[in-house]
Amino acid sequence: MLLRRSHRHRLLLLHHNHRQSKSFSTLTVPLSHPTYTIWSSNTSLGKTLVSAGISSSFLLSPSSSNAKKFLYLKPLQTGFPSDSDSRFLFQKLSSLSLRRNLPLFSSHSVLLSSLPAAKSFKPNNFSLNDSQEMCELAFYEERKVLKEGKVAPELVSETLYAWEGALSPHLAAEREGGAVGDSELIKKVKRRLEEGLLEDGVERGRLDGFCVVETAGGVASPGASGTLQCDLYRPLRFPGVLVGDGRLGGISGTISAYETLKLRGYDVVAIVIEDHGLANEIPLMSYLRTRVPVFVLPPIPQDPSNDLMEWFDESCNVFNSLKETMLEAYLERMRRLNEMPRRAGDVFWWPFTQHKLVPPSTVTVIDSRCGENFSVYKVQNKEYITQQFDACASWWTQGPDATLQTELARDMGYAAARFGHVMFPENVYEPALECAELLLDGVGKGWATRVYFSDNGSTAIEIALKMAFRKFSSDHGILPELLENNPAESCHELMVLALTGSYHGDTLGAMEAQAPSSYTGFLQQPWYTGRGLFLDPPTVFMHNGKWSLSLPEVFHSGNLEPEDITFRSRDEIFLKSRDKSNLAGLYSSYVSQQLSQYSTFSGTKQIGALIIEPVIQGAGGMHMVDPLFQRMLVNECRHSRIPVIFDEVFTGFWRLGVEAAAELLGCVPDIACFAKLMTGGIIPLSATLATDAVFNSFTGDSKLKALLHGHSYSAHAMGCTAAAKSIKWFKDPITNLNITSEKSQKNVLRELWDAELVEQISSHPSVSRVVALGTLFALELQPDGSDAGYASLYARSLVQMLREDGIYCRPLGNVIYVMCGPCTSPEICTQQLHKLYLKLEEFTQVKRAMKID
Amino acid sequence: MLLRRSHRHRLLLLHHNHRQSKSFSTLTVPLSHPTYTIWSSNTSLGKTLVSAGISSSFLLSPSSSNAKKFLYLKPLQTGFPSDSDSRFLFQKLSSLSLRRNLPLFSSHSVLLSSLPAAKSFKPNNFSLNDSQEMCELAFYEERKVLKEGKVAPELVSETLYAWEGALSPHLAAEREGGAVGDSELIKKVKRRLEEGLLEDGVERGRLDGFCVVETAGGVASPGASGTLQCDLYRPLRFPGVLVGDGRLGGISGTISAYETLKLRGYDVVAIVIEDHGLANEIPLMSYLRTRVPVFVLPPIPQDPSNDLMEWFDESCNVFNSLKETMLEAYLERMRRLNEMPRRAGDVFWWPFTQHKLVPPSTVTVIDSRCGENFSVYKVQNKEYITQQFDACASWWTQGPDATLQTELARDMGYAAARFGHVMFPENVYEPALECAELLLDGVGKGWATRVYFSDNGSTAIEIALKMAFRKFSSDHGILPELLENNPAESCHELMVLALTGSYHGDTLGAMEAQAPSSYTGFLQQPWYTGRGLFLDPPTVFMHNGKWSLSLPEVFHSGNLEPEDITFRSRDEIFLKSRDKSNLAGLYSSYVSQQLSQYSTFSGTKQIGALIIEPVIQGAGGMHMVDPLFQRMLVNECRHSRIPVIFDEVFTGFWRLGVEAAAELLGCVPDIACFAKLMTGGIIPLSATLATDAVFNSFTGDSKLKALLHGHSYSAHAMGCTAAAKSIKWFKDPITNLNITSEKSQKNVLRELWDAELVEQISSHPSVSRVVALGTLFALELQPDGSDAGYASLYARSLVQMLREDGIYCRPLGNVIYVMCGPCTSPEICTQQLHKLYLKLEEFTQVKRAMKID
Repeated sequence: MLLRRSHRHRLLLLHHNHRQSKSFSTLTVPLSHPTYTIWSSNTSLGKTLVSAGISSSFLLSPSSSNAKKFLYLKPLQTGFPSDSDSRFLFQKLSSLSLRRNLPLFSSHSVLLSSLPAAKSFKPNNFSLNDSQEMCELAFYEERKVLKEGKVAPELVSETLYAWEGALSPHLAAEREGGAVGDSELIKKVKRRLEEGLLEDGVERGRLDGFCVVETAGGVASPGASGTLQCDLYRPLRFPGVLVGDGRLGGISGTISAYETLKLRGYDVVAIVIEDHGLANEIPLMSYLRTRVPVFVLPPIPQDPSNDLMEWFDESCNVFNSLKETMLEAYLERMRRLNEMPRRAGDVFWWPFTQHKLVPPSTVTVIDSRCGENFSVYKVQNKEYITQQFDACASWWTQGPDATLQTELARDMGYAAARFGHVMFPENVYEPALECAELLLDGVGKGWATRVYFSDNGSTAIEIALKMAFRKFSSDHGILPELLENNPAESCHELMVLALTGSYHGDTLGAMEAQAPSSYTGFLQQPWYTGRGLFLDPPTVFMHNGKWSLSLPEVFHSGNLEPEDITFRSRDEIFLKSRDKSNLAGLYSSYVSQQLSQYSTFSGTKQIGALIIEPVIQGAGGMHMVDPLFQRMLVNECRHSRIPVIFDEVFTGFWRLGVEAAAELLGCVPDIACFAKLMTGGIIPLSATLATDAVFNSFTGDSKLKALLHGHSYSAHAMGCTAAAKSIKWFKDPITNLNITSEKSQKNVLRELWDAELVEQISSHPSVSRVVALGTLFALELQPDGSDAGYASLYARSLVQMLREDGIYCRPLGNVIYVMCGPCTSPEICTQQLHKLYLKLEEFTQVKRAMKID
Repeated sequence: MLLRRSHRHRLLLLHHNHRQSKSFSTLTVPLSHPTYTIWSSNTSLGKTLVSAGISSSFLLSPSSSNAKKFLYLKPLQTGFPSDSDSRFLFQKLSSLSLRRNLPLFSSHSVLLSSLPAAKSFKPNNFSLNDSQEMCELAFYEERKVLKEGKVAPELVSETLYAWEGALSPHLAAEREGGAVGDSELIKKVKRRLEEGLLEDGVERGRLDGFCVVETAGGVASPGASGTLQCDLYRPLRFPGVLVGDGRLGGISGTISAYETLKLRGYDVVAIVIEDHGLANEIPLMSYLRTRVPVFVLPPIPQDPSNDLMEWFDESCNVFNSLKETMLEAYLERMRRLNEMPRRAGDVFWWPFTQHKLVPPSTVTVIDSRCGENFSVYKVQNKEYITQQFDACASWWTQGPDATLQTELARDMGYAAARFGHVMFPENVYEPALECAELLLDGVGKGWATRVYFSDNGSTAIEIALKMAFRKFSSDHGILPELLENNPAESCHELMVLALTGSYHGDTLGAMEAQAPSSYTGFLQQPWYTGRGLFLDPPTVFMHNGKWSLSLPEVFHSGNLEPEDITFRSRDEIFLKSRDKSNLAGLYSSYVSQQLSQYSTFSGTKQIGALIIEPVIQGAGGMHMVDPLFQRMLVNECRHSRIPVIFDEVFTGFWRLGVEAAAELLGCVPDIACFAKLMTGGIIPLSATLATDAVFNSFTGDSKLKALLHGHSYSAHAMGCTAAAKSIKWFKDPITNLNITSEKSQKNVLRELWDAELVEQISSHPSVSRVVALGTLFALELQPDGSDAGYASLYARSLVQMLREDGIYCRPLGNVIYVMCGPCTSPEICTQQLHKLYLKLEEFTQVKRAMKID
């Protein structure tokens, strides 16, 4: 098949953008050698002396191998050229090598600086007419102290960006120009680390290389962009050494700085303080419970004329121990990272996983996450940590970008410290109250008055079912019978009305409300019976760039026009005006007829609740159910006084571009369940919301009439704190740039998926359908009839390729999806779609090639 | 009935101890006026200037009422007498009142000091021969600046403890003597606050009083005992003002100090910095997202001869705004606290609660928790926050003391920042791996090889049932049938063997495994059928100081000796030698006969699993089941190849004095469920542990054979981090002083409940039985036959009295229990039992009196 011209053009563009975006997006950091960040609790506590001491211990110990190389990076230097930590290090190390009579090849360079700094450094090379951008200073100097017959170890000391003012980098950058973006800085650090320890393309042995990255000022001092350095360097998450404060008041500053680093997810392997005669190390070690060793340096001579040579000699043992601690921590980390897949395979029992199909080599080692990205440990020739976009949104829960993650981390610490957990019944505490009020004012607005907290989606559903059945019993005369006679038994048999392909959770009650499938049979849960009337839903999807409707057979006889089953746009699908269409009538009468089979007055079986996932059936395969059909279902059930449950566990909180998917349906439930994204995806918590009428069916004089269901951690403070923060964060246009209210009164997310690209993918020969809505992009692979089960194998290999390209996917049968958070920028989304499209192309070619063979 | 002499003696002793312990335990802090802590990110940043500024704004504004009183407390002063912040404040305020021509009555006092400080201050009054204890300095001075016809506002400026050395308080106390215990200090602060704003027993109007407590050094500087001040003052949890750092590097120190306070659960209402020309307030405000206002003070003159009068004038507006912010925050907090019960009643749907029976006045407002205690907001004439011992261990989950709570809070922040949440299947990350390995090396030691994570006890049970049924199917030939034919259906009907009175959770699967009760009927869950063979268990308890056995009727015909049904000690109940008793034979044959009714080869109904709560049935009423009976059950089931599930959700992790209650039974399960205390009680997480044989019944080539059950937050990083920390903390004798291994090889908790007192309570006429084991003390109230339902009403009123006495209880029917954490000291436990005993006495008397009437 020839590609259409536009298609080709697009493809070229994609390839082009792809290269760009790839270099932009995938952060890969080598782990071949120890790399540490040198942090400090304040300015002027001796970070550079510590860096120099570590490097001297590494390079200038008489006993050590000489094939060593030490890379010192000072990413941000202010007060330049009079202050230059990289020059200081370079000079001290050169002097120490002479003094100790040990060879050393050292070099020093300064890469870029602001114009004032450049003019001050090289007055002849730069003038005021130069631009305000950073100047390529490209300064380089070197020294060699050689010894006969000995290879000289090597020091590379570098400053990346320098400014003239002796100020915080953000102020210097503001005053002198030369703003440096966070990702630009991170990229440069990463590149220097990759290149720094290479020599003619050959890398040093594991313990023959060593890198330190020295920060500027204190742990939370702003970098050049204004971002705090502890936040700025977070994507790298190098382990750290904290240079603390040995002075009066220094215990406090050191502990606080340590806690600021821990609150960003950093590991700190050692603390170093200068001796001021106050023995600050004693309370520090006691407080840290010997988890982190505290090293004490001799008092630093204050006389500027002192060349510190004697001080370095005196400090030699301390620096040797510090260096050893750093090397050991590095080796321990590597040992642990390498062992993790095997050990995981030995002790874990993963959910939804056939362990026999998971060899250790396929286990993903997640070292950390930062915003939407995993940092994954990999070994491919060499060891490294690489970023992968978490396209599963970690099982559909994730919302935070890197900023919200840090905020949530601090809030989690606060909530744990303020409340730990306190029991809920008959009590009130701030986070639970705030969370409940936010829920009622948001996803429950206009209908719900009560919030029932539990721990996950499945328990929220079990609670919803109990609520619905009670309401039904109350409305249909069963409740008085029960209360008067035996509250334990009844001749009534209640069922749910639900849709085929729906999924509501894995506990038995939730399972009973879904149609039989591989997940529900005797093999999985012998107690499952399927207590529902399950209807096949009409679905909508995009294919070949067009949205259309797929109707179950039962509707095929209906008198339908083409315009009933195709749509000019996705928005058209949600129009309320469809209520007047032929299709609406068809839907209504079908549902009404089904319900009439179980009317209240015939037999013991009754439909006691409707339960649906509004708009998108998630676990069932990312099927978009025709919202018109769901609206008709709700209408008919309301007509028959059957309580309506919306399972918004997956769809709630902006997953589909609106705060609650009910908004897309244009109708409200009696009961709705929320979980997953509710807490920003950081901690389990769920809520079942209900109307006053539902609540009232449980009130009375007897406790036995109350809803007797509860979990110990109901409304736990951390979960409610996270939820309150996330709910507000997601809907506030100041914190969530995706929020727009252009289209309607209500807030919606702007379109995150590039429309043209979505159409393109939907037209791809390997794709049978596409759904793109809110934070969700899903495609179903075209099954290949000649090869049974082929599709899912195909999915698996595509997934593997995507992971290698920096997208962490997990297939859902033969459905591949990319899910972002409510705050993820459209640029990042588009980048993932680009990659997906390219991999789709690649694999279709491989598949074709294999077929021809 | 006459009391035995020993009983009387004991009672007297109790009354005596009670008074002592009460004054020791119940911390009550008034909220009648704004009270703030002044914190600082470092020494010498001007905390006292800020305190002085706030007090001057409060007392010396021309427009303000003159009936005002400001209390300034400096709990810890070093460098005394040359440094005295309370004197400084006193002097500056006196001078300002003169300068501003406004009346002021000010006083200054220093209560206690070390001997060197006392000698230096009053050389004639103290000599070297005096003890090393703190000296009663009792220094007092006052000044009056009066104005005709005007009432003078009042300043009280006080130092509580002073040392001579200009050092951190912990060093000064070490060098000069005069250690001050944390609780002693807290008590004194609390007392001074209570007394300070009283005058002739009359308190000032709400906004006519104002208190500040100024700390020493930085937020995390050690106090006199060595405890960091941020930890030391935590039980008071006053809102704070943070004096930050306007210098170079000060942004970092200020943010870190702010985070250290948040990590202790403090609220910070304002930050104040001195202007050093660096505009540090801009990045601070940006970082804090305008949540906390940042105030900037004019540069502070450095010349010691400057009396600062002009500076105070210049700063006047800043301090006025700061004071307004503090007043507003106070009013907002009070408004919120007062509204909370009503608002909670409007929006919450509490679990297990009949809302009609909960008027707002009975709702408990929990402001925070610290270790084992709630801080509860109360209004009784005046508003205050009072401590209540959380005797419910917050629905049976709690473990941390105040130290572990702080550690967990930091760990929660770290885990959230490092991982947020990352999906689990086929992945590995450090906290999940560490947690799983600790579980297998602890509660699963010797039998379990796999860990299946989920969110709460109920889901852990649902998973356990699925595991057990698969194992049973595999062992009994059902599995091959399923795999060959239809995996969805089978002619087999599997049931559980379980005990009457057992409770396993509120989701349907867990409910089905328990015997019918008020919690399971149609009224609660129409789908419940009770899929089990439920046996009545024999129970043991203490009554009248003796442990004895209560046998169900079915065993009454047995040929039993008195020694079979009474025990000399609690330990005797657990002896393995009982396996050879008549009773053991009786139990065995009974169980075996019951099982034979459902033998594999007769009919479709089969017993597919045994499920029991080892030793204690929690929710069923704190019944202690005869461990011999449970051991025989396990033996017989093993014999019939029926998988054994231990539900250790309640009993696990030291609840019963051993890490897993299975240790008490002396036998192991095939599957066990853990939750609640597993995370230290801070966050929901559960684990289902299983043997290799169970795991293997799910392995195969098909994913459909895998256990297809999972929750989005499976093995979430924060939960696993909390669990790993708590598991280690509880079992380590260094962190948990209750751990002892005297009695056996295995670690056990020392006896927490005073043996004599337990016997005493068990002999009380209102008590029908007592169970004391591990962290659990429970008593059942003697029901009063003449008044049906009386017992539970009786329980409720007893509970109300206990709450007023500082014990937060919640009755379980007519069972009252006190539950502590694994680290709670026996002294604290005894204190609660004392209170309980006294209230029991009091109420029995009330009951008797009512009867006579």
